[in-house]
Amino acid sequence: MNTSVNKKMYGLGSKRSEIRELFEYGKKRIAEVGAENVFDFSIGNPSVAAPDCVKEALASLVLEGDPVALHGYTSAQGDAAVRKACADYITATHGTACGADDFYMTCGAAASLTISLNALSCEDNEVIVFAPYFPEYKVFINQTGMKCVEVKCSEEDFQIDFAAFEAALNENTKAVIINSPNNPSGAVFSQATIEKLACILNAAEQKYGHSIFIIADEPYRELVYDAETVVPFIPNFYDNTIVCYSFSKSLSLPGERIGYVFVSPKAAAHDEVYFAVCGAGRALGFVCAPALFQKIVPMCIGKTADLSVYKKNRDILCSALTQYGYKVVKPDGAFYLFVKALEEDSHAFCEKAKAHDLLIVASDSFGFPGYARISYCVSTEMIERSLPAFEALAKEYK
Amino acid sequence: MNTSVNKKMYGLGSKRSEIRELFEYGKKRIAEVGAENVFDFSIGNPSVAAPDCVKEALASLVLEGDPVALHGYTSAQGDAAVRKACADYITATHGTACGADDFYMTCGAAASLTISLNALSCEDNEVIVFAPYFPEYKVFINQTGMKCVEVKCSEEDFQIDFAAFEAALNENTKAVIINSPNNPSGAVFSQATIEKLACILNAAEQKYGHSIFIIADEPYRELVYDAETVVPFIPNFYDNTIVCYSFSKSLSLPGERIGYVFVSPKAAAHDEVYFAVCGAGRALGFVCAPALFQKIVPMCIGKTADLSVYKKNRDILCSALTQYGYKVVKPDGAFYLFVKALEEDSHAFCEKAKAHDLLIVASDSFGFPGYARISYCVSTEMIERSLPAFEALAKEYK
Repeated sequence: MNTSVNKKMYGLGSKRSEIRELFEYGKKRIAEVGAENVFDFSIGNPSVAAPDCVKEALASLVLEGDPVALHGYTSAQGDAAVRKACADYITATHGTACGADDFYMTCGAAASLTISLNALSCEDNEVIVFAPYFPEYKVFINQTGMKCVEVKCSEEDFQIDFAAFEAALNENTKAVIINSPNNPSGAVFSQATIEKLACILNAAEQKYGHSIFIIADEPYRELVYDAETVVPFIPNFYDNTIVCYSFSKSLSLPGERIGYVFVSPKAAAHDEVYFAVCGAGRALGFVCAPALFQKIVPMCIGKTADLSVYKKNRDILCSALTQYGYKVVKPDGAFYLFVKALEEDSHAFCEKAKAHDLLIVASDSFGFPGYARISYCVSTEMIERSLPAFEALAKEYK
Repeated sequence: MNTSVNKKMYGLGSKRSEIRELFEYGKKRIAEVGAENVFDFSIGNPSVAAPDCVKEALASLVLEGDPVALHGYTSAQGDAAVRKACADYITATHGTACGADDFYMTCGAAASLTISLNALSCEDNEVIVFAPYFPEYKVFINQTGMKCVEVKCSEEDFQIDFAAFEAALNENTKAVIINSPNNPSGAVFSQATIEKLACILNAAEQKYGHSIFIIADEPYRELVYDAETVVPFIPNFYDNTIVCYSFSKSLSLPGERIGYVFVSPKAAAHDEVYFAVCGAGRALGFVCAPALFQKIVPMCIGKTADLSVYKKNRDILCSALTQYGYKVVKPDGAFYLFVKALEEDSHAFCEKAKAHDLLIVASDSFGFPGYARISYCVSTEMIERSLPAFEALAKEYK
């Protein structure tokens, strides 16, 4: 008896991602040699607690809220008061005039992306991503039938290589995904980069006679560590922008799946895009974003978990690794350090690291070979313990 | 400047469902004539509170749990302990041997369905649905590129019309969705129906040489009201079964989006199907089911909200409507009453009902013209208040 399943889905489900594979190896190694001897930098799972306001909001809602209203369906695009709170916050923070009806609440950033991509997808469309990029972008884009076109960032500063970008643009380009602060490089696109990107896209829209969207994937927006680092708010620079946001990292709630799609009110054909977003959410089976966690948004928006440990971790790692002779990309945000592999083959480099029980991810799956990603959303104590292993690894190459 | 969005998604998002349209009309009418004069039976939103165990579980997790672990990512298929609790419960309740790795936790029944359908979908595949059916089935099936084939139930007892079913089966049939207790008819498929369905499907699998799946959509499993009503557990009757479950109705948590996909361990190529389910969850952007509500599952599974009000509502409505001369389908479960329209055109009938401020849904969108759906997950007091309006409506037709 022949059983056929969808081959693409089987492929995605049967092969663990490299990151997940390494994480599972780490758990096995811990059982063998003890947690104190394994340095697991594989996964981007926030290591700090949600801020107190989350606990307080949850407790008051659960203990005092009307349980029928509390856990009931919200409208498909999200509770109106929750969407208004998001709009008010964006207006107050970025000076961007917007309202509740520009927001569609989602089950986190991944859902925001799949919904936005399905909403925009038309025949023969292409979506440009800047490498290094979060590997799931390719999965999400391909699921819609669109083509994923990779453009490498400049290795010097991990800003956009505009010559390569202009070469990739064509009449089929529908959207460009940007992710700043970036996973895996930690780079933040400067205002100059965003202005130039907007200028080129405006010209391309004129040339090809159709809208091209920026999809700004912003789960790490609040994770920047230096006073001088500004993360430009894209809708203030480019009209056809869809922001995909998640509270996963800012409020340390990655498992709760709460975020939004924000369709800039200045977008061409705003209503068509917004309705297509609503339709995609419906067709993909989202119904509504989790009700209880929607309701904590107005109570906690603008607050963040205590992110100071990430800055501390970043500073310890950067300074030690540079001292040992590694070349690292200056990480302005997120909780990833992108380090140049000490040999051409990043997989071989990461295998050698593994022999020191240093679990770091080869950069090939991010579309940018020759590096490794270190997730520093871990305990500072583990980082300090890991330094001799990084030093020993560097010495092997001397 | 031309802005193209996905036409299908735009269509789904810009046109409210008839049910949602009626619900919005009801809110407008309440503002005009007062809540006491509007009888809104449009929407299937549970009207009873979640059971105390949910509040207790949430409170103890929020107040005493480790906030990092509590809100962190679970594995994509769901927390292992949660999946084990589901397996243990199914084994204990239905005598079905199964384990944690047969379960994939989801954001509710809609997500369970879109994930299962995307997992199975191959070129030219068809999925059979039995009318009357939940209208979103068609949306979910079409989103995968498969064809939705409707087979009407017998009007006599709302069981499967097997002659029509056999005529619809062909070499492209990949799956059959069943929904028992049914939305909108309230009918429960009997054991005899399930046995005959299984027998015909086994023969069809032999004839066409490939697996055909039953997708059992079971959000209303626990909502049955008479001791003699048994809802057969499909995996005990047919091997190639995927159960799509949700805790929305049993625990009155529809907004929280928590449910599962259960791939029967007896399914042919179980692992291929399960991996394809994992892949589809990934491609559609689900990441993991909401973490906090996953954790309440082991603490509350098998308990239900106080469903006695639904039985009371059903009995009052059935008896009064029958007395007024309506013909109703005997509702064994769920919280819907399917009543025959008093004229051929069910839309015209529902419009006349609307003139009495009785908001009931014409059955055409359920693929079964000539009826109306009454959602009785409302207050008993509103039902009692609505009876004179039902009586007056019936009198118009005499």
